[in-house]
Amino acid sequence: MGFRVTRSAKASWQGTVTGGDGRLALDSGAFEGPYSLRARVEGIERHTNPEEMIAAAEAGCFTMSLANLLEEAGHPARDLQTTARATLEQVRSGFDITRIELSTVADVPGLDAERFERIAREAKNCTVSRALRGVEITLDATLQSRESVAGA
Amino acid sequence: MGFRVTRSAKASWQGTVTGGDGRLALDSGAFEGPYSLRARVEGIERHTNPEEMIAAAEAGCFTMSLANLLEEAGHPARDLQTTARATLEQVRSGFDITRIELSTVADVPGLDAERFERIAREAKNCTVSRALRGVEITLDATLQSRESVAGA
Repeated sequence: MGFRVTRSAKASWQGTVTGGDGRLALDSGAFEGPYSLRARVEGIERHTNPEEMIAAAEAGCFTMSLANLLEEAGHPARDLQTTARATLEQVRSGFDITRIELSTVADVPGLDAERFERIAREAKNCTVSRALRGVEITLDATLQSRESVAGA
Repeated sequence: MGFRVTRSAKASWQGTVTGGDGRLALDSGAFEGPYSLRARVEGIERHTNPEEMIAAAEAGCFTMSLANLLEEAGHPARDLQTTARATLEQVRSGFDITRIELSTVADVPGLDAERFERIAREAKNCTVSRALRGVEITLDATLQSRESVAGA
């Protein structure tokens, strides 16, 4: 039988969308806090929104997948830094997450740029990317080994 | 020109997948903390993982959409409580998020069950659900007004 696990989160809301309040909680206990329409469309410090949660899931899944593939290639990463930018856009009658831009900078000793590029492209097909089939995902991957920085 | 906004998050990783460490950060500042392969497949308290972030995004988006549709129907929700359970499952060569089960309990004064059911089904087609086109999403929606509980 195959491996299977369930991961959960909770959302609550009271009242109207513009005047009401919502909260989000991760079942691991790592986070619990407010979210709102204003946080979603304007941004409020320390208030989260579904789109940045999607961006975090994608950044996290891609980066772990990249670490895994680099290890399998015999070149474990010294450091990977990834940003995911999700675009929420008005389309027809509603709002869609149209695009996620992944940008990663990797410090990987002893790996050439071409092979790194190939591995990074493979990591882009990670679990969360496959779930987000309704979204175009792009990747900008940069190999920047510490040696070359030190030698610059 | 249509509305458009970008929401971001960051991931970092050092070392191998099993022995290394990762961190996730939401750009709103609402959350920053560790994530790992073990948190993903076994669960570690206060360590997050991409799947519960996906669950949170889906729970949050669905619940805000439900609040919005109930308000439009002239019956703003007194209270909405939603859980999203994401299943991570071994399929063929890798792991897929195969399924998200939404479960919501709504306290909505003056709304009949049939109309509530119709509105809840519409909310299930929210922005994040449309992005997660690779995932089967199910919904269990319960209308539980405070009056009927008090009168029970």
